[in-house]
Amino acid sequence: MSAKVKTAITPVRSENYPEWYQQVVKAADLAEASPVRGCMIIKPWGCALWEQCQRVLDGMFKDTGHRNAYFPLLIPKRFLEKEAEHVEGFAKECAVVTHHRLEAGPDGGLVPAGELDEPLVVRPTSEMIIGEAFSRWIESYRDLPLLINQWANVVRWEMRTRLFLRTAEFLWQEGHTAHATSEEAVEHTERMLDVYADFCDNWMAMPVLRGRKTEAERFPGADDTLCIEAMMQDRKALQAGTSHFLGQNFSKAQDIIYLNDKGERTHCWTTSWGVSTRLIGGLIMTHADDDGLVLPPRLAPAQVVIIPITFKADDPEAVMDYCRSLAEELKGIVYAGRPIGVEIDDRDIRGGEKTWSWVKKGVPIRLEIGPRDMAEDSVFMARRDRPAKEKQGVPRGTFLETIVPLLDEMQQGLYDRALAHRTEHTREIDSKEEFYEWFTAPEGEPTPIHAGFAMSHFCGDREVEERIKSELGVTVLCEPLGDAEPGTCPFTGQPSPRRVFWGKSY
Amino acid sequence: MSAKVKTAITPVRSENYPEWYQQVVKAADLAEASPVRGCMIIKPWGCALWEQCQRVLDGMFKDTGHRNAYFPLLIPKRFLEKEAEHVEGFAKECAVVTHHRLEAGPDGGLVPAGELDEPLVVRPTSEMIIGEAFSRWIESYRDLPLLINQWANVVRWEMRTRLFLRTAEFLWQEGHTAHATSEEAVEHTERMLDVYADFCDNWMAMPVLRGRKTEAERFPGADDTLCIEAMMQDRKALQAGTSHFLGQNFSKAQDIIYLNDKGERTHCWTTSWGVSTRLIGGLIMTHADDDGLVLPPRLAPAQVVIIPITFKADDPEAVMDYCRSLAEELKGIVYAGRPIGVEIDDRDIRGGEKTWSWVKKGVPIRLEIGPRDMAEDSVFMARRDRPAKEKQGVPRGTFLETIVPLLDEMQQGLYDRALAHRTEHTREIDSKEEFYEWFTAPEGEPTPIHAGFAMSHFCGDREVEERIKSELGVTVLCEPLGDAEPGTCPFTGQPSPRRVFWGKSY
Repeated sequence: MSAKVKTAITPVRSENYPEWYQQVVKAADLAEASPVRGCMIIKPWGCALWEQCQRVLDGMFKDTGHRNAYFPLLIPKRFLEKEAEHVEGFAKECAVVTHHRLEAGPDGGLVPAGELDEPLVVRPTSEMIIGEAFSRWIESYRDLPLLINQWANVVRWEMRTRLFLRTAEFLWQEGHTAHATSEEAVEHTERMLDVYADFCDNWMAMPVLRGRKTEAERFPGADDTLCIEAMMQDRKALQAGTSHFLGQNFSKAQDIIYLNDKGERTHCWTTSWGVSTRLIGGLIMTHADDDGLVLPPRLAPAQVVIIPITFKADDPEAVMDYCRSLAEELKGIVYAGRPIGVEIDDRDIRGGEKTWSWVKKGVPIRLEIGPRDMAEDSVFMARRDRPAKEKQGVPRGTFLETIVPLLDEMQQGLYDRALAHRTEHTREIDSKEEFYEWFTAPEGEPTPIHAGFAMSHFCGDREVEERIKSELGVTVLCEPLGDAEPGTCPFTGQPSPRRVFWGKSY
Repeated sequence: MSAKVKTAITPVRSENYPEWYQQVVKAADLAEASPVRGCMIIKPWGCALWEQCQRVLDGMFKDTGHRNAYFPLLIPKRFLEKEAEHVEGFAKECAVVTHHRLEAGPDGGLVPAGELDEPLVVRPTSEMIIGEAFSRWIESYRDLPLLINQWANVVRWEMRTRLFLRTAEFLWQEGHTAHATSEEAVEHTERMLDVYADFCDNWMAMPVLRGRKTEAERFPGADDTLCIEAMMQDRKALQAGTSHFLGQNFSKAQDIIYLNDKGERTHCWTTSWGVSTRLIGGLIMTHADDDGLVLPPRLAPAQVVIIPITFKADDPEAVMDYCRSLAEELKGIVYAGRPIGVEIDDRDIRGGEKTWSWVKKGVPIRLEIGPRDMAEDSVFMARRDRPAKEKQGVPRGTFLETIVPLLDEMQQGLYDRALAHRTEHTREIDSKEEFYEWFTAPEGEPTPIHAGFAMSHFCGDREVEERIKSELGVTVLCEPLGDAEPGTCPFTGQPSPRRVFWGKSY
């Protein structure tokens, strides 16, 4: 008796999550693979979404005293030879520039020519080149703190790539700061983690855990790595951002020295922190459904799309005028700090195709406006957080008066749903057996859905951590910050300072 | 009797213009050379200025129907082998990636490893990679026009570099559009030139000539190159932006084909256009003076800087409060479409040094606020377009009421002065002798100041153009657009369709 529900995305989420993800990216027209190995083309809708992230984060960085700067894309090889521990990981996967010219080869094609004296690396991160600048810019305590951010592209030679989640080239921001004292630098590391968490919770509607990486998972060269972790719909974890306290490691490797108020030469304490276009992958895997992308209203490039239905109209231009005046009124309303974003879709394509394209793009509110709506001075409205066929007529005045609280309600609804999902799939586990059972799929069941997170005590033994990783593919996502209750490690029987979060990770 | 006037910049403009330019960039803390050959570090004040350019231009691009997208940094070599004419110039000076790893070499240093099957080039421009995407994205006339813009970094292996004017890596935007007809594409090429001219005239206060390049100076692969040209203070020309009508050259090389409404496969007509961080060089050489940068108010990252003078105050915190409340009031005033930008400089350095740092950075209005100003409810104001020592007390209320017209007046003043400069140093010349004399420095005088522009008839003979270029270092800057009066070419005696602009170029 039950009719198969038709969805915009095939396969559906529950059938094949990784493939569903790729299809959502495609259906929402966010990005595509490029002819360049491992690199993606970010299409206009994906680019607009990233610009929204940039705009909001950039405001937060400026509010916390940072200024943007821009450093060279290409980094001399000798810079990578300075800080061995840090560089090792990056040197294994970087694009190396060795020539500065192409010239006609014997077979008519172009061949590299003009070999460089010193190879250059396309930046995988800018710690080294920014550190060099800091060593020149900082003289005395008066120059501190130095709070710099950069928006940039970086390249890491990834072999197995997935759009937004892992690509050879990606866009990101990297903050780099120098401080007079360890305390100040630690405080700043935490402040920036809070900025990231604020952005994820309140703009992306993606609830995140704030925590600390174990030594094994720490950024090479950092004294401490803080992170935010989110549970995706398939119950795997996505590391959405990191904030590193670098101690004096980089300042010693790079001579970042200041004169304190007694005139003594002192090494600075530095931090770095970053988020990337990976956030868009997190957004998809937090909110999208079997009809495509679902955008949290505060971050949507447009909150409202208006679809004029003119094919039966006696006077199509009158319908268009009605739509345009509605758009103007909407743009006069401030939501989340800026005018409501409105698209009018007057493309020359079938109405159904048009509507579905906006469902798949995840725009929060769709309005279909035909001659009857115009005659009744109303709008025919659909919400992206409800089934696509559920639509209702609303008087124009009422719609305009209630749009802001409606968007707020949708934003909150998305957050609440994601938080409930995480809560439902996070379990306190106190025995090794239960832990192993929780993270082991039933035999013969290649389910794409994972267990979720475990909160278990852990003594911190690195060998145990390694064994669990190799046996179950599970790592410590983070140690929660703040007060902790001690207990017993279920793996070793040793004392444990606190429960930590475990899970499978993207 | 005349005292030597002390200036912030040494040497002064009239002594050594190129060196003065470098010193202004340094004094305003806009950018610096980096340890990477030919690449600059854009410092926070320079970055803020570029962000202002981006914000305004991006709004203009969106208002004319464009969407941003992002394409790969690295371009496979085979893409450069497709469009020979276009690529030739770029292939001679590009960064070539040949390896994807560094590994420990025999002497302990790192050496390139993991050679690529096909070398990649760091994009010198994105025509080729965007063209490939267009060939996939465009199917029918319904997909046209396709209007895309990209903000990106590009690399061209320049040997002789100057900050902002010519650097190996620079930041720019590149617009790429595809159209159904030649007429539409030509119209779009002109529209984008107008957008650039609007930006330069009305935001940068830098008057530009709009014109067309001669065949010799045209972009390789273009059917027509339009450009804007500005006269710098040393009377040389700066090409500030270009807009290319590419005809069907690229669409044929890259199979950018659409089905027209009769179902026929037709090659698109394409355009491309770009401006870069070079604009900041133009801004400096249009407005800066012997005290440093002078910013046009509409484009300044901050229109007002407040310098609290607290060292003699009984209650320094009261002065700070007065400054902060003033800043808040200023931020409540909209100028050029956004809240007035205000900096409060509470750095712990000498007052004179502090004031001069903002003079050198070119902030339009400086306010020094001490206990007396507070007591009188006034501000002590200096304008960047007047001598640095000229300051006046103004009642706070009056200041707030008149700040917007004052900024408008300053903006207009900068534009008028630059236009008068160009007019003064542009001469109609009708004989070859006068032309040669005009562009030849008096013997033994290695003056850094050039003649200016000549408006002379020109028959279009390419040999003549080449000869003048090699003999005088002078080129045709552009043929003005619009109606023209025919005449006689002073170099050949042949008929000439119009006067064209000649000059020395950056």
